[in-house]
Amino acid sequence: MPEIHSKFEDCVIVVGVGLIGGSIAAAIRQRYPACEVIGVGRCEKRLAAAKAAGLLTDFTTSVTENLLQRSALVVVCLPVDLIAAEVTRIALLAGDDVTITDAGSVKQAICKQVAANERSQRLFVGAHPIAGGEQGGFEYAEADLFSQKVCVVVDTADEARTDRVKRFWRGLECDVVTMTASEHDRTLALTSHLPHVMAAVTTSAVGPENLPMTGSGFRDVTRIAAGDPSLWRAILTGNRDEVIAAIKVAERLLVDYRTALETLDDDGIESLLRAAAEHRSQLDA
Amino acid sequence: MPEIHSKFEDCVIVVGVGLIGGSIAAAIRQRYPACEVIGVGRCEKRLAAAKAAGLLTDFTTSVTENLLQRSALVVVCLPVDLIAAEVTRIALLAGDDVTITDAGSVKQAICKQVAANERSQRLFVGAHPIAGGEQGGFEYAEADLFSQKVCVVVDTADEARTDRVKRFWRGLECDVVTMTASEHDRTLALTSHLPHVMAAVTTSAVGPENLPMTGSGFRDVTRIAAGDPSLWRAILTGNRDEVIAAIKVAERLLVDYRTALETLDDDGIESLLRAAAEHRSQLDA
Repeated sequence: MPEIHSKFEDCVIVVGVGLIGGSIAAAIRQRYPACEVIGVGRCEKRLAAAKAAGLLTDFTTSVTENLLQRSALVVVCLPVDLIAAEVTRIALLAGDDVTITDAGSVKQAICKQVAANERSQRLFVGAHPIAGGEQGGFEYAEADLFSQKVCVVVDTADEARTDRVKRFWRGLECDVVTMTASEHDRTLALTSHLPHVMAAVTTSAVGPENLPMTGSGFRDVTRIAAGDPSLWRAILTGNRDEVIAAIKVAERLLVDYRTALETLDDDGIESLLRAAAEHRSQLDA
Repeated sequence: MPEIHSKFEDCVIVVGVGLIGGSIAAAIRQRYPACEVIGVGRCEKRLAAAKAAGLLTDFTTSVTENLLQRSALVVVCLPVDLIAAEVTRIALLAGDDVTITDAGSVKQAICKQVAANERSQRLFVGAHPIAGGEQGGFEYAEADLFSQKVCVVVDTADEARTDRVKRFWRGLECDVVTMTASEHDRTLALTSHLPHVMAAVTTSAVGPENLPMTGSGFRDVTRIAAGDPSLWRAILTGNRDEVIAAIKVAERLLVDYRTALETLDDDGIESLLRAAAEHRSQLDA
Protein backbone atom coordinates (compact mmCIF):
# COMPACT_ATOMS: atom_id res chain seq x y z
CA MET A 1 0.00 0.00 0.00
CA PRO A 2 1.41 3.42 -0.88
CA GLU A 3 2.25 5.36 2.25
CA ILE A 4 1.75 8.89 0.92
CA HIS A 5 2.74 11.59 3.40
CA SER A 6 0.90 14.86 3.49
CA LYS A 7 4.21 16.56 4.31
CA PHE A 8 6.86 15.72 1.76
CA GLU A 9 9.78 17.82 0.53
CA ASP A 10 9.18 21.06 -1.42
CA CYS A 11 12.28 20.63 -3.53
CA VAL A 12 14.54 17.64 -4.16
CA ILE A 13 17.83 17.92 -6.02
CA VAL A 14 18.83 14.67 -7.74
CA VAL A 15 22.52 14.51 -8.62
CA GLY A 16 23.02 11.92 -11.33
CA VAL A 17 19.93 11.17 -13.40
CA GLY A 18 20.51 7.56 -14.42
CA LEU A 19 18.37 4.52 -13.64
CA ILE A 20 18.29 5.22 -9.89
CA GLY A 21 18.22 9.01 -9.98
CA GLY A 22 15.65 8.93 -12.77
CA SER A 23 13.47 6.46 -10.86
CA ILE A 24 13.64 8.64 -7.74
CA ALA A 25 12.60 11.62 -9.85
CA ALA A 26 9.76 9.63 -11.44
CA ALA A 27 8.59 8.38 -8.03
CA ILE A 28 8.47 11.94 -6.67
CA ARG A 29 6.78 13.44 -9.74
CA GLN A 30 4.10 10.76 -9.69
CA ARG A 31 3.32 11.01 -5.96
CA TYR A 32 4.07 14.63 -5.08
CA PRO A 33 3.32 16.87 -8.07
CA ALA A 34 3.89 19.94 -5.88
CA CYS A 35 7.50 18.95 -5.17
CA GLU A 36 10.13 20.37 -7.50
CA VAL A 37 12.69 17.89 -8.81
CA ILE A 38 15.90 19.49 -10.06
CA GLY A 39 18.21 17.17 -11.95
CA VAL A 40 21.98 17.68 -11.95
CA GLY A 41 24.25 16.02 -14.48
CA ARG A 42 27.11 16.55 -16.90
CA CYS A 43 25.18 16.47 -20.16
CA GLU A 44 22.57 19.17 -20.76
CA LYS A 45 21.07 17.28 -23.67
CA ARG A 46 20.41 14.20 -21.52
CA LEU A 47 18.98 16.35 -18.74
CA ALA A 48 16.70 18.13 -21.19
CA ALA A 49 15.49 14.76 -22.43
CA ALA A 50 14.81 13.64 -18.84
CA LYS A 51 12.83 16.84 -18.28
CA ALA A 52 10.93 16.30 -21.52
CA ALA A 53 10.13 12.77 -20.29
CA GLY A 54 8.45 14.37 -17.27
CA LEU A 55 11.04 13.30 -14.70
CA LEU A 56 12.39 16.74 -13.80
CA THR A 57 10.91 20.17 -13.24
CA ASP A 58 14.29 21.80 -13.92
CA PHE A 59 17.94 20.90 -14.42
CA THR A 60 21.46 22.29 -14.20
CA THR A 61 24.98 21.01 -14.76
CA SER A 62 26.29 21.84 -11.30
CA VAL A 63 25.06 22.38 -7.77
CA THR A 64 25.64 26.01 -6.78
CA GLU A 65 25.29 27.94 -3.53
CA ASN A 66 22.36 29.73 -5.13
CA LEU A 67 20.51 26.53 -5.94
CA LEU A 68 20.98 25.37 -2.37
CA GLN A 69 19.38 28.55 -0.96
CA ARG A 70 16.05 26.80 -1.22
CA SER A 71 15.67 24.45 1.70
CA ALA A 72 16.30 21.24 -0.16
CA LEU A 73 17.05 17.59 0.15
CA VAL A 74 19.90 16.51 -2.12
CA VAL A 75 20.07 12.87 -3.28
CA VAL A 76 23.41 11.89 -4.76
CA CYS A 77 22.91 9.04 -7.25
CA LEU A 78 26.39 8.71 -8.69
CA PRO A 79 28.60 5.62 -9.02
CA VAL A 80 29.74 4.67 -5.51
CA ASP A 81 33.34 5.83 -6.01
CA LEU A 82 32.19 9.39 -6.83
CA ILE A 83 29.58 9.87 -4.10
CA ALA A 84 31.70 10.99 -1.12
CA ALA A 85 33.59 13.70 -3.02
CA GLU A 86 30.35 15.11 -4.43
CA VAL A 87 28.64 15.03 -1.03
CA THR A 88 31.57 16.96 0.47
CA ARG A 89 31.63 19.48 -2.38
CA ILE A 90 27.90 20.14 -1.99
CA ALA A 91 28.09 20.31 1.81
CA LEU A 92 30.68 23.08 1.64
CA LEU A 93 28.21 25.20 -0.36
CA ALA A 94 25.13 24.39 1.70
CA GLY A 95 23.44 25.87 4.75
CA ASP A 96 22.31 23.83 7.72
CA ASP A 97 18.79 23.50 6.30
CA VAL A 98 20.09 21.31 3.49
CA THR A 99 20.29 17.56 4.02
CA ILE A 100 22.23 15.26 1.74
CA THR A 101 21.58 11.55 1.24
CA ASP A 102 22.70 9.02 -1.38
CA ALA A 103 21.67 5.74 -2.96
CA GLY A 104 25.03 3.99 -3.05
CA SER A 105 25.40 0.21 -2.72
CA VAL A 106 28.31 0.48 -0.29
CA LYS A 107 28.21 2.55 2.87
CA GLN A 108 31.36 2.25 5.01
CA ALA A 109 33.80 3.71 2.51
CA ILE A 110 31.40 6.56 1.67
CA CYS A 111 30.52 7.41 5.28
CA LYS A 112 34.19 7.34 6.28
CA GLN A 113 35.25 9.67 3.46
CA VAL A 114 32.31 12.00 4.14
CA ALA A 115 33.17 12.07 7.86
CA ALA A 116 36.65 13.37 7.07
CA ASN A 117 35.01 16.78 6.66
CA GLU A 118 33.08 18.19 9.60
CA ARG A 119 30.54 20.00 7.38
CA SER A 120 29.70 17.07 5.11
CA GLN A 121 29.62 14.79 8.16
CA ARG A 122 26.95 17.08 9.65
CA LEU A 123 24.67 17.29 6.58
CA PHE A 124 24.92 13.72 5.29
CA VAL A 125 22.73 10.72 6.09
CA GLY A 126 23.73 7.72 3.99
CA ALA A 127 21.09 5.49 2.43
CA HIS A 128 20.76 2.54 0.08
CA PRO A 129 17.47 1.55 -1.51
CA ILE A 130 17.81 -2.13 -2.45
CA ALA A 131 16.45 -1.88 -5.97
CA GLY A 132 17.93 -1.60 -9.41
CA GLY A 133 18.35 -3.26 -12.73
CA GLU A 134 21.05 -4.26 -15.17
CA GLN A 135 20.05 -1.56 -17.67
CA GLY A 136 21.44 1.93 -17.04
CA GLY A 137 20.01 5.34 -17.99
CA PHE A 138 16.90 7.32 -17.08
CA GLU A 139 15.10 5.73 -20.05
CA TYR A 140 14.69 2.66 -17.82
CA ALA A 141 13.42 4.69 -14.86
CA GLU A 142 10.36 3.36 -13.07
CA ALA A 143 8.22 5.34 -10.67
CA ASP A 144 7.57 2.19 -8.64
CA LEU A 145 11.15 0.89 -8.56
CA PHE A 146 11.33 1.46 -4.80
CA SER A 147 7.84 0.37 -3.79
CA GLN A 148 7.93 -2.25 -1.05
CA LYS A 149 11.73 -2.44 -1.36
CA VAL A 150 13.98 -2.20 1.67
CA CYS A 151 15.94 1.04 2.01
CA VAL A 152 18.80 1.00 4.49
CA VAL A 153 19.38 4.32 6.25
CA VAL A 154 22.62 4.64 8.21
CA ASP A 155 21.73 6.05 11.61
CA THR A 156 23.38 9.28 12.73
CA ALA A 157 23.42 11.23 16.01
CA ASP A 158 21.33 13.97 14.38
CA GLU A 159 17.87 12.55 14.90
CA ALA A 160 15.93 15.27 13.07
CA ARG A 161 18.11 14.96 9.99
CA THR A 162 17.97 11.17 10.01
CA ASP A 163 14.19 11.35 10.34
CA ARG A 164 13.97 13.66 7.34
CA VAL A 165 15.88 11.15 5.23
CA LYS A 166 13.80 8.23 6.50
CA ARG A 167 10.62 10.19 5.72
CA PHE A 168 11.93 10.87 2.22
CA TRP A 169 12.56 7.21 1.42
CA ARG A 170 9.29 6.14 3.06
CA GLY A 171 7.59 8.70 0.84
CA LEU A 172 8.89 6.68 -2.13
CA GLU A 173 7.22 3.65 -0.50
CA CYS A 174 10.42 2.03 0.76
CA ASP A 175 10.49 -0.12 3.87
CA VAL A 176 13.14 1.79 5.79
CA VAL A 177 15.50 -0.11 8.10
CA THR A 178 18.36 1.47 10.01
CA MET A 179 21.74 -0.15 10.58
CA THR A 180 25.39 0.80 10.83
CA ALA A 181 27.47 1.21 7.70
CA SER A 182 29.49 -1.88 8.54
CA GLU A 183 26.38 -4.01 9.15
CA HIS A 184 25.07 -2.83 5.79
CA ASP A 185 28.27 -3.69 3.94
CA ARG A 186 28.65 -7.12 5.53
CA THR A 187 25.05 -7.98 4.66
CA LEU A 188 25.06 -6.57 1.13
CA ALA A 189 28.31 -8.36 0.33
CA LEU A 190 26.30 -11.58 0.68
CA THR A 191 22.87 -10.50 -0.61
CA SER A 192 23.98 -8.40 -3.59
CA HIS A 193 27.72 -8.22 -4.29
CA LEU A 194 28.42 -11.96 -4.13
CA PRO A 195 25.40 -12.76 -6.36
CA HIS A 196 26.85 -10.41 -8.96
CA VAL A 197 30.20 -12.20 -8.85
CA MET A 198 28.44 -15.59 -9.01
CA ALA A 199 26.42 -14.48 -12.05
CA ALA A 200 29.57 -13.24 -13.77
CA VAL A 201 31.49 -16.43 -12.97
CA THR A 202 28.63 -18.62 -14.21
CA THR A 203 28.58 -16.62 -17.45
CA SER A 204 32.34 -16.85 -17.95
CA ALA A 205 32.41 -20.59 -17.29
CA VAL A 206 30.50 -21.14 -20.56
CA GLY A 207 32.38 -20.65 -23.82
CA PRO A 208 30.72 -18.66 -26.63
CA GLU A 209 30.25 -21.87 -28.65
CA ASN A 210 28.01 -23.24 -25.90
CA LEU A 211 25.74 -20.22 -25.40
CA PRO A 212 23.08 -21.72 -27.72
CA MET A 213 22.95 -24.70 -25.33
CA THR A 214 21.81 -22.57 -22.40
CA GLY A 215 18.23 -22.48 -21.15
CA SER A 216 16.03 -20.24 -19.05
CA GLY A 217 17.82 -21.31 -15.84
CA PHE A 218 21.17 -20.06 -17.14
CA ARG A 219 19.49 -16.87 -18.28
CA ASP A 220 18.09 -16.25 -14.80
CA VAL A 221 21.32 -17.02 -12.96
CA THR A 222 23.42 -14.80 -15.24
CA ARG A 223 21.02 -11.92 -15.97
CA ILE A 224 22.68 -9.39 -13.65
CA ALA A 225 26.12 -10.16 -15.10
CA ALA A 226 25.09 -7.80 -17.94
CA GLY A 227 25.31 -4.88 -15.48
CA ASP A 228 27.74 -1.99 -16.09
CA PRO A 229 31.30 -3.29 -15.39
CA SER A 230 32.66 0.04 -14.17
CA LEU A 231 29.77 0.58 -11.73
CA TRP A 232 30.29 -2.91 -10.38
CA ARG A 233 34.06 -2.55 -10.16
CA ALA A 234 33.42 0.47 -7.93
CA ILE A 235 30.96 -1.49 -5.78
CA LEU A 236 33.16 -4.58 -5.37
CA THR A 237 36.32 -2.60 -4.68
CA GLY A 238 34.39 -0.16 -2.48
CA ASN A 239 33.40 -3.07 -0.24
CA ARG A 240 36.61 -5.00 -0.73
CA ASP A 241 37.07 -6.81 2.59
CA GLU A 242 33.46 -7.93 2.91
CA VAL A 243 33.33 -9.08 -0.72
CA ILE A 244 36.53 -11.09 -0.24
CA ALA A 245 34.93 -12.73 2.82
CA ALA A 246 31.73 -13.45 0.88
CA ILE A 247 33.66 -15.02 -2.00
CA LYS A 248 35.42 -17.27 0.53
CA VAL A 249 32.01 -18.40 1.81
CA ALA A 250 31.02 -19.33 -1.75
CA GLU A 251 34.35 -21.10 -2.35
CA ARG A 252 33.81 -23.21 0.76
CA LEU A 253 30.28 -24.12 -0.30
CA LEU A 254 31.50 -25.11 -3.78
CA VAL A 255 34.11 -27.33 -2.14
CA ASP A 256 31.28 -28.93 -0.11
CA TYR A 257 29.42 -29.80 -3.33
CA ARG A 258 32.57 -30.98 -5.10
CA THR A 259 33.71 -33.10 -2.15
CA ALA A 260 30.29 -34.74 -1.82
CA LEU A 261 30.42 -35.61 -5.54
CA GLU A 262 34.00 -36.87 -5.35
CA THR A 263 33.34 -39.05 -2.32
CA LEU A 264 30.09 -40.47 -3.78
CA ASP A 265 28.16 -38.91 -0.89
CA ASP A 266 24.91 -38.63 -2.85
CA ASP A 267 22.83 -38.09 0.29
CA GLY A 268 25.16 -35.21 1.11
CA ILE A 269 24.46 -33.63 -2.30
CA GLU A 270 20.74 -33.94 -1.75
CA SER A 271 21.02 -32.41 1.74
CA LEU A 272 22.90 -29.42 0.36
CA LEU A 273 20.34 -28.97 -2.43
CA ARG A 274 17.41 -29.40 -0.05
CA ALA A 275 18.72 -26.80 2.39
CA ALA A 276 19.10 -24.31 -0.47
CA ALA A 277 15.67 -25.12 -1.93
CA GLU A 278 13.95 -24.70 1.43
CA HIS A 279 15.82 -21.48 2.05
CA ARG A 280 14.92 -20.11 -1.39
CA SER A 281 11.27 -21.05 -1.00
CA GLN A 282 11.02 -18.42 1.74
CA LEU A 283 11.24 -15.81 -1.01
CA ASP A 284 8.67 -15.40 -3.77
CA ALA A 285 9.70 -16.28 -7.34
CA MET B 1 7.51 -20.05 -36.55
CA PRO B 2 5.79 -23.34 -35.79
CA GLU B 3 7.17 -26.07 -37.99
CA ILE B 4 4.12 -28.32 -38.17
CA HIS B 5 4.70 -31.58 -40.00
CA SER B 6 1.94 -33.14 -42.03
CA LYS B 7 3.25 -36.55 -40.93
CA PHE B 8 3.49 -36.79 -37.17
CA GLU B 9 3.05 -39.83 -34.92
CA ASP B 10 -0.33 -41.58 -34.62
CA CYS B 11 0.23 -42.49 -31.00
CA VAL B 12 2.72 -41.25 -28.41
CA ILE B 13 3.13 -42.89 -25.01
CA VAL B 14 4.40 -40.48 -22.35
CA VAL B 15 5.89 -42.23 -19.33
CA GLY B 16 5.91 -39.80 -16.39
CA VAL B 17 3.38 -36.99 -16.68
CA GLY B 18 5.09 -34.21 -14.70
CA LEU B 19 6.17 -30.80 -15.92
CA ILE B 20 8.11 -32.17 -18.89
CA GLY B 21 5.86 -35.12 -19.77
CA GLY B 22 2.80 -32.93 -19.32
CA SER B 23 4.22 -30.22 -21.54
CA ILE B 24 5.07 -32.77 -24.23
CA ALA B 25 1.50 -34.04 -24.03
CA ALA B 26 0.11 -30.50 -24.19
CA ALA B 27 2.34 -29.63 -27.15
CA ILE B 28 1.14 -32.71 -29.06
CA ARG B 29 -2.55 -32.23 -28.21
CA GLN B 30 -2.42 -28.61 -29.34
CA ARG B 31 -0.61 -29.24 -32.61
CA TYR B 32 -1.72 -32.75 -33.64
CA PRO B 33 -5.27 -33.40 -32.43
CA ALA B 34 -5.33 -36.66 -34.41
CA CYS B 35 -2.40 -38.08 -32.42
CA GLU B 36 -3.28 -40.14 -29.36
CA VAL B 37 -1.36 -39.32 -26.20
CA ILE B 38 -1.34 -42.08 -23.61
CA GLY B 39 0.00 -41.12 -20.20
CA VAL B 40 1.71 -43.64 -17.94
CA GLY B 41 2.26 -43.02 -14.23
CA ARG B 42 1.96 -44.48 -10.77
CA CYS B 43 -1.07 -42.55 -9.60
CA GLU B 44 -4.40 -43.09 -11.43
CA LYS B 45 -5.96 -40.07 -9.78
CA ARG B 46 -3.23 -37.76 -11.06
CA LEU B 47 -3.43 -39.31 -14.53
CA ALA B 48 -7.20 -38.87 -14.58
CA ALA B 49 -6.69 -35.21 -13.64
CA ALA B 50 -4.16 -34.79 -16.46
CA LYS B 51 -6.66 -36.34 -18.88
CA ALA B 52 -9.42 -34.07 -17.56
CA ALA B 53 -7.06 -31.13 -18.14
CA GLY B 54 -6.96 -32.15 -21.82
CA LEU B 55 -3.34 -33.35 -21.83
CA LEU B 56 -4.02 -37.05 -22.43
CA THR B 57 -6.38 -39.07 -24.59
CA ASP B 58 -5.93 -42.10 -22.33
CA PHE B 59 -3.81 -43.33 -19.42
CA THR B 60 -2.58 -46.46 -17.68
CA THR B 61 -0.34 -47.30 -14.76
CA SER B 62 2.06 -49.50 -16.69
CA VAL B 63 3.34 -50.08 -20.17
CA THR B 64 2.21 -53.51 -21.38
CA GLU B 65 3.00 -55.60 -24.44
CA ASN B 66 -0.58 -55.00 -25.54
CA LEU B 67 -0.27 -51.24 -25.38
CA LEU B 68 2.90 -51.41 -27.45
CA GLN B 69 1.16 -53.37 -30.23
CA ARG B 70 0.23 -50.06 -31.75
CA SER B 71 3.18 -48.66 -33.62
CA ALA B 72 4.14 -46.03 -31.11
CA LEU B 73 6.81 -43.62 -29.98
CA VAL B 74 7.48 -43.85 -26.27
CA VAL B 75 8.90 -40.80 -24.46
CA VAL B 76 10.28 -41.56 -21.01
CA CYS B 77 10.06 -38.43 -18.83
CA LEU B 78 11.17 -39.81 -15.48
CA PRO B 79 13.90 -38.53 -13.13
CA VAL B 80 17.25 -39.23 -14.78
CA ASP B 81 18.18 -42.07 -12.42
CA LEU B 82 15.04 -44.04 -13.36
CA ILE B 83 15.12 -43.60 -17.13
CA ALA B 84 17.49 -46.36 -18.25
CA ALA B 85 15.77 -49.13 -16.28
CA GLU B 86 12.36 -48.08 -17.62
CA VAL B 87 13.64 -47.88 -21.20
CA THR B 88 15.05 -51.39 -20.90
CA ARG B 89 11.86 -52.75 -19.33
CA ILE B 90 9.75 -51.27 -22.13
CA ALA B 91 12.15 -52.40 -24.87
CA LEU B 92 11.86 -56.01 -23.73
CA LEU B 93 8.08 -55.82 -24.32
CA ALA B 94 8.21 -53.94 -27.61
CA GLY B 95 8.40 -54.85 -31.27
CA ASP B 96 10.84 -53.28 -33.71
CA ASP B 97 8.26 -50.73 -34.80
CA VAL B 98 8.41 -49.07 -31.39
CA THR B 99 10.98 -46.33 -30.80
CA ILE B 100 11.87 -45.07 -27.33
CA THR B 101 13.29 -41.65 -26.52
CA ASP B 102 13.66 -39.66 -23.30
CA ALA B 103 13.97 -36.13 -22.01
CA GLY B 104 16.69 -36.61 -19.39
CA SER B 105 19.25 -33.91 -18.55
CA VAL B 106 22.15 -36.35 -18.57
CA LYS B 107 22.93 -38.68 -21.45
CA GLN B 108 26.13 -40.69 -20.97
CA ALA B 109 25.02 -42.65 -17.92
CA ILE B 110 21.61 -43.36 -19.47
CA CYS B 111 22.94 -44.37 -22.89
CA LYS B 112 25.56 -46.61 -21.28
CA GLN B 113 23.00 -48.41 -19.09
CA VAL B 114 20.57 -48.76 -21.99
CA ALA B 115 23.33 -50.16 -24.21
CA ALA B 116 23.93 -52.97 -21.73
CA ASN B 117 20.88 -54.65 -23.25
CA GLU B 118 20.91 -55.38 -26.98
CA ARG B 119 17.15 -54.86 -27.35
CA SER B 120 16.93 -51.51 -25.52
CA GLN B 121 20.09 -50.37 -27.30
CA ARG B 122 18.33 -51.03 -30.63
CA LEU B 123 15.05 -49.19 -29.85
CA PHE B 124 16.40 -46.22 -27.91
CA VAL B 125 17.44 -42.79 -29.19
CA GLY B 126 18.33 -40.48 -26.30
CA ALA B 127 17.22 -36.86 -26.29
CA HIS B 128 17.22 -33.79 -24.08
CA PRO B 129 15.05 -30.77 -24.75
CA ILE B 130 16.71 -27.83 -22.97
CA ALA B 131 13.63 -26.44 -21.30
CA GLY B 132 12.08 -26.70 -17.89
CA GLY B 133 11.13 -24.85 -14.78
CA GLU B 134 11.61 -25.04 -11.03
CA GLN B 135 7.96 -26.01 -10.45
CA GLY B 136 7.11 -29.70 -10.85
CA GLY B 137 3.83 -31.34 -11.86
CA PHE B 138 1.63 -31.38 -14.97
CA GLU B 139 -0.30 -28.41 -13.53
CA TYR B 140 2.63 -26.26 -14.71
CA ALA B 141 2.68 -27.85 -18.19
CA GLU B 142 2.94 -25.46 -21.13
CA ALA B 143 2.19 -26.41 -24.74
CA ASP B 144 4.93 -24.01 -25.90
CA LEU B 145 7.61 -25.03 -23.39
CA PHE B 146 9.74 -26.47 -26.19
CA SER B 147 9.16 -23.86 -28.89
CA GLN B 148 12.42 -22.51 -30.25
CA LYS B 149 14.33 -24.42 -27.57
CA VAL B 150 17.31 -26.59 -28.43
CA CYS B 151 16.73 -30.34 -28.20
CA VAL B 152 19.84 -32.49 -28.21
CA VAL B 153 19.39 -35.86 -29.93
CA VAL B 154 22.16 -38.41 -29.40
CA ASP B 155 23.05 -39.80 -32.81
CA THR B 156 22.79 -43.56 -33.34
CA ALA B 157 23.78 -45.90 -36.19
CA ASP B 158 20.09 -46.50 -36.94
CA GLU B 159 19.40 -43.54 -39.19
CA ALA B 160 15.67 -44.17 -39.69
CA ARG B 161 15.06 -44.45 -35.97
CA THR B 162 17.14 -41.36 -35.18
CA ASP B 163 15.25 -39.44 -37.86
CA ARG B 164 11.93 -40.46 -36.33
CA VAL B 165 13.02 -39.06 -32.98
CA LYS B 166 14.37 -35.86 -34.55
CA ARG B 167 11.08 -35.45 -36.44
CA PHE B 168 9.18 -35.91 -33.18
CA TRP B 169 11.08 -33.16 -31.35
CA ARG B 170 11.00 -30.86 -34.37
CA GLY B 171 7.26 -31.41 -34.41
CA LEU B 172 7.20 -29.84 -30.93
CA GLU B 173 9.06 -26.88 -32.48
CA CYS B 174 12.45 -27.72 -31.02
CA ASP B 175 15.68 -26.76 -32.75
CA VAL B 176 17.21 -30.23 -32.95
CA VAL B 177 21.00 -30.60 -32.71
CA THR B 178 22.83 -33.91 -32.68
CA MET B 179 25.89 -34.67 -30.60
CA THR B 180 27.46 -37.55 -28.71
CA ALA B 181 26.34 -38.32 -25.17
CA SER B 182 29.70 -37.21 -23.81
CA GLU B 183 29.65 -33.92 -25.72
CA HIS B 184 26.16 -33.34 -24.34
CA ASP B 185 27.18 -34.01 -20.75
CA ARG B 186 30.34 -31.90 -20.88
CA THR B 187 28.36 -28.98 -22.30
CA LEU B 188 25.34 -29.26 -20.01
CA ALA B 189 27.58 -29.50 -16.95
CA LEU B 190 28.56 -25.91 -17.73
CA THR B 191 25.33 -24.52 -19.18
CA SER B 192 22.83 -26.11 -16.77
CA HIS B 193 24.27 -28.21 -13.94
CA LEU B 194 26.87 -25.69 -12.73
CA PRO B 195 24.32 -22.82 -12.81
CA HIS B 196 22.11 -24.90 -10.53
CA VAL B 197 24.97 -25.40 -8.06
CA MET B 198 25.86 -21.70 -8.26
CA ALA B 199 22.25 -20.72 -7.55
CA ALA B 200 22.13 -23.08 -4.57
CA VAL B 201 25.47 -21.84 -3.20
CA THR B 202 24.41 -18.19 -3.58
CA THR B 203 21.21 -18.99 -1.68
CA SER B 204 23.01 -20.83 1.11
CA ALA B 205 25.59 -18.06 1.56
CA VAL B 206 22.83 -15.78 2.89
CA GLY B 207 21.48 -16.47 6.37
CA PRO B 208 17.70 -16.46 6.94
CA GLU B 209 18.00 -13.19 8.89
CA ASN B 210 19.33 -11.47 5.76
CA LEU B 211 16.73 -12.68 3.25
CA PRO B 212 14.71 -9.44 3.63
CA MET B 213 17.84 -7.58 2.49
CA THR B 214 17.88 -9.29 -0.90
CA GLY B 215 16.71 -7.62 -4.10
CA SER B 216 15.61 -8.65 -7.56
CA GLY B 217 19.19 -9.55 -8.55
CA PHE B 218 19.43 -12.14 -5.79
CA ARG B 219 16.00 -13.45 -6.74
CA ASP B 220 17.11 -13.95 -10.36
CA VAL B 221 20.42 -15.61 -9.49
CA THR B 222 18.83 -18.01 -7.00
CA ARG B 223 15.45 -18.76 -8.65
CA ILE B 224 16.38 -22.24 -9.92
CA ALA B 225 17.70 -23.25 -6.49
CA ALA B 226 14.05 -23.86 -5.59
CA GLY B 227 14.04 -26.87 -7.96
CA ASP B 228 13.31 -30.37 -6.65
CA PRO B 229 16.38 -31.53 -4.62
CA SER B 230 15.98 -35.22 -5.45
CA LEU B 231 15.68 -34.58 -9.20
CA TRP B 232 18.79 -32.42 -9.06
CA ARG B 233 20.72 -34.92 -6.92
CA ALA B 234 20.08 -37.45 -9.68
CA ILE B 235 21.24 -35.01 -12.36
CA LEU B 236 24.42 -33.91 -10.56
CA THR B 237 25.40 -37.43 -9.54
CA GLY B 238 24.37 -38.79 -12.95
CA ASN B 239 26.90 -36.45 -14.57
CA ARG B 240 29.40 -36.62 -11.72
CA ASP B 241 32.77 -36.22 -13.46
CA GLU B 242 31.69 -33.37 -15.70
CA VAL B 243 29.98 -31.53 -12.84
CA ILE B 244 33.12 -31.87 -10.71
CA ALA B 245 35.15 -30.40 -13.59
CA ALA B 246 32.62 -27.57 -14.01
CA ILE B 247 32.73 -26.74 -10.29
CA LYS B 248 36.53 -26.56 -10.53
CA VAL B 249 36.17 -24.03 -13.36
CA ALA B 250 33.93 -21.90 -11.14
CA GLU B 251 36.31 -22.25 -8.17
CA ARG B 252 39.20 -21.01 -10.33
CA LEU B 253 37.18 -18.03 -11.55
CA LEU B 254 36.19 -17.14 -7.98
CA VAL B 255 39.86 -17.24 -7.02
CA ASP B 256 40.56 -14.84 -9.92
CA TYR B 257 38.05 -12.37 -8.52
CA ARG B 258 39.27 -12.80 -4.95
CA THR B 259 42.93 -12.45 -5.91
CA ALA B 260 42.25 -9.30 -7.93
CA LEU B 261 40.46 -7.82 -4.91
CA GLU B 262 43.21 -8.91 -2.49
CA THR B 263 46.02 -7.50 -4.63
CA LEU B 264 44.18 -4.20 -5.27
CA ASP B 265 44.08 -5.03 -8.99
CA ASP B 266 40.97 -2.94 -9.65
CA ASP B 267 41.53 -2.92 -13.42
CA GLY B 268 41.65 -6.70 -13.22
CA ILE B 269 38.23 -6.76 -11.51
CA GLU B 270 36.80 -4.53 -14.20
CA SER B 271 38.27 -6.71 -16.97
CA LEU B 272 36.70 -9.82 -15.45
CA LEU B 273 33.32 -8.08 -15.11
CA ARG B 274 33.53 -6.62 -18.61
CA ALA B 275 34.29 -10.00 -20.20
CA ALA B 276 31.27 -11.50 -18.43
CA ALA B 277 28.98 -8.58 -19.32
CA GLU B 278 29.95 -8.73 -23.00
CA HIS B 279 29.50 -12.47 -23.03
CA ARG B 280 26.08 -12.24 -21.36
CA SER B 281 24.93 -9.52 -23.76
CA GLN B 282 25.04 -12.11 -26.55
CA LEU B 283 21.92 -13.64 -24.98
CA ASP B 284 18.60 -11.87 -24.66
CA ALA B 285 17.40 -10.93 -21.18
